[in-house]
Amino acid sequence: MAPLPSTAVLLRRRPEGEPRPDDFEIVHRPCPDPEDGQLRLEVLWLSLDPYMRGRMSAARSYVEPVGIGDVMAGQAVCRVESSRHPGFAPGTLVLAGSGWCTAALSDGTGLIRLDPAPAPLTAALGVLGMPGLTAYAGLAEIGRPKAGETVVVAAATGPVGSAVGQIARKRGCRAVGIAGGAEKCRLLVEHFGFDAAVDHRAPDFPARLKAACPNGIDVYFENVGGAVWDAVLPLLNDFSRVPVCGLVSQYNATALPAGPNRVPDVMRAVLSRRIEIRGFIVWDFAHRAGEFRREVGTWVADGSMRTLEHRVEGIERAPAALVDMLAGRNLGKVVVKVAPGAPD
Amino acid sequence: MAPLPSTAVLLRRRPEGEPRPDDFEIVHRPCPDPEDGQLRLEVLWLSLDPYMRGRMSAARSYVEPVGIGDVMAGQAVCRVESSRHPGFAPGTLVLAGSGWCTAALSDGTGLIRLDPAPAPLTAALGVLGMPGLTAYAGLAEIGRPKAGETVVVAAATGPVGSAVGQIARKRGCRAVGIAGGAEKCRLLVEHFGFDAAVDHRAPDFPARLKAACPNGIDVYFENVGGAVWDAVLPLLNDFSRVPVCGLVSQYNATALPAGPNRVPDVMRAVLSRRIEIRGFIVWDFAHRAGEFRREVGTWVADGSMRTLEHRVEGIERAPAALVDMLAGRNLGKVVVKVAPGAPD
Repeated sequence: MAPLPSTAVLLRRRPEGEPRPDDFEIVHRPCPDPEDGQLRLEVLWLSLDPYMRGRMSAARSYVEPVGIGDVMAGQAVCRVESSRHPGFAPGTLVLAGSGWCTAALSDGTGLIRLDPAPAPLTAALGVLGMPGLTAYAGLAEIGRPKAGETVVVAAATGPVGSAVGQIARKRGCRAVGIAGGAEKCRLLVEHFGFDAAVDHRAPDFPARLKAACPNGIDVYFENVGGAVWDAVLPLLNDFSRVPVCGLVSQYNATALPAGPNRVPDVMRAVLSRRIEIRGFIVWDFAHRAGEFRREVGTWVADGSMRTLEHRVEGIERAPAALVDMLAGRNLGKVVVKVAPGAPD
Repeated sequence: MAPLPSTAVLLRRRPEGEPRPDDFEIVHRPCPDPEDGQLRLEVLWLSLDPYMRGRMSAARSYVEPVGIGDVMAGQAVCRVESSRHPGFAPGTLVLAGSGWCTAALSDGTGLIRLDPAPAPLTAALGVLGMPGLTAYAGLAEIGRPKAGETVVVAAATGPVGSAVGQIARKRGCRAVGIAGGAEKCRLLVEHFGFDAAVDHRAPDFPARLKAACPNGIDVYFENVGGAVWDAVLPLLNDFSRVPVCGLVSQYNATALPAGPNRVPDVMRAVLSRRIEIRGFIVWDFAHRAGEFRREVGTWVADGSMRTLEHRVEGIERAPAALVDMLAGRNLGKVVVKVAPGAPD
C-alpha cells in the first residue's frame, strides 16, 4: 500500500442565495494508507441530492452543516481499495458517506454492503436507496394512500417524485406528477406511467393542476414548496395528508416572498378541511427499510418500477451539477461517475 | 296544549369583519303545538361558542352556513315542555341543537338525554360537552402528550383551553396557558392549576412565552392563530404536534395580514423539526365520547377538574355576548340563561 492520489471537493464558503460552482474548491491531495482497523474506499458513484443545499448553510436544521474547508458531504457507492479492517476485504462494494472525493478512509462505521446482482449499482443511490425509502416510507407513514385516491407529487421526474407516483399507482391511486417543461411531463406519463402530468411553468398552471385532479387531492407529497404549494392548497380534500420531505424551491431564497402573509389561509384550510401536514426525514422511518427493500426490490427486478438517471462524469463536475439540479436543469436522479472505470 | 309565546334570534345579514349585535334580529312569534311524533322544547341554557362566527359566513367550511333570516344555530340544554313523541316524556332534560330561541319543535332526532345528577346542567355545554370533548380527543388523537412534555394552549380560560391544560397536567405534562390580561392569567394558575400563564397582550409576549417554556413546546393546541401562532412556531420542538381546532383571532379578518408571506417559514419549520399540524373538528372523534365522559366525568365529580362559567341572562343578550366572546371580553365558558327559572 501507498498513499493514493485523490481529488476532493471542499466547501469554500456558504452561498448567499443560489449556490455557484466557485462556492466549492477542488483540491488534490493523497489519501493516506489505512491504519489498523481502517480501510480505504475508492469512490465509484457519488449521489447528488437536494438536501445538500441545506448542508451548505448554517441555518438551523436536522443535521450539522458542512464546515468551511471541509469535504462536502454525500453518499456514494464505493469499492474497498485496501483494508486493515477485519470486516471488509478489498473489492467489497459498499454504500458509504464518503463525501465528495475520489478516495476516503473509513473505520467501517455506517458502511452498508451492496449486492451488485439484483440491480445496477447506482440504484443504491436512488430507487433502492435514500430517495426510494423517502418516497416509500413517507407514503406509508404519512400519506397513507387508499385505492381510488389522488396522489400528487412535484419534482416528479426526480428519484423521490418518480417513486412516489409509481408506488401510488401500485396502491391503486391516481398519480399526478408536476414537473418543469414538456419533456419532463412527457416522461412522467410515457416512462413512469403517471396518470397525468402538469407543467408548473405553464402560465395557467393552477387551472391545469385542477383539471388534472377532478376529484381533488388526497395526498400531496411535498418536496418543493412555493408556487406549487400555493396551487395545491385549494385542491386538498377533507382529511388529506401532506408529507413534507423537502422544499427545494425555497432553499436558495434569501428573503421571504412579498405579502400578503398567507399563513392564515393555510391554517384555515388545515382546520376546515382537517388536513394533516407533517415533516419527516428519511431516517425517522429507518424501521421501514427492510420492508422497503423487499417490496421495491421486487418491482425493480421485475421491471415494473422504472428509473431515470442523469449521469455526470468526473468529480470536478459535481459543483456545477448540484447547482443545475437545484435549478431543475437535470432529468432524473443525478449521479456523478467518480471512478472512470466504475461498473454500472 | 296551545301555541307557546317564543322569542328567537335570526341572522339578519352576514357580517363584514367583526360581527355586530344588529347583524341579528330578535323576533317574537308563537311556537306551534307539536304534531304527532313531535315534541316541544323549552330552552333553558344556550351555549355560545367561537365556531358560531363561521356559521354566520358563507365561506367554505365543514358545515353549511346559517341562512339569512334563519334562527341562529346553537346547542342548548332544554326541557321537554310538551310531547306527542313516544320516546320523550314532558319534563325530560335533553341536549339539543335548538338554535337561539326560547322554544322549539323537534322530532327527537339528535336529542341527547341529560342526567342532572352528577354535574351542573350547564356542564353539558362545556367541560362534559362539545368543548370538553374537543380538548380531550384533540389531545388524545393528535397531541399525544407524554409525561414530562410541555403543552401550550391559548384562549386558556375558555372551556377548551382550560380543559386542555388540566388534562395535560393529569398526563404528567407542563401546562402553559396563554390568555389576554392579568386577571385571566391569574386564574390560569390559581384556579385551573396551569404551571405558567402568559399574557398575549404584553409587548414582550414572545420572550415571555419562551421563558415559560424552557424546554420548548411539544404540543401546541391551536385554537387562536395569528400572533400567538407566530410566537409559538420558533419554540416548537422536534416531533412536536399541533392539533388545530380553531382560529378565533382570524375569524373576523376581512383581508390577509400584510407581508412578507411567512408560509415558507412555517413549512421550513415543519420540515426541519418534523412538526405535525393537523386540523380536526370534534365530531371527527365522536368515537372517543364514551371514554371521555367516563374519565372527565370522574374528574368533575371529584373536583379535580375545574370549570369557569360566564353567565349571561336573557336570549336577547346573546348577540352582544357572542360579539364580546369573539373579542375575548368574557371570562370562561359563555352560557346564556334563556329560561328565567332554569335550574343549574
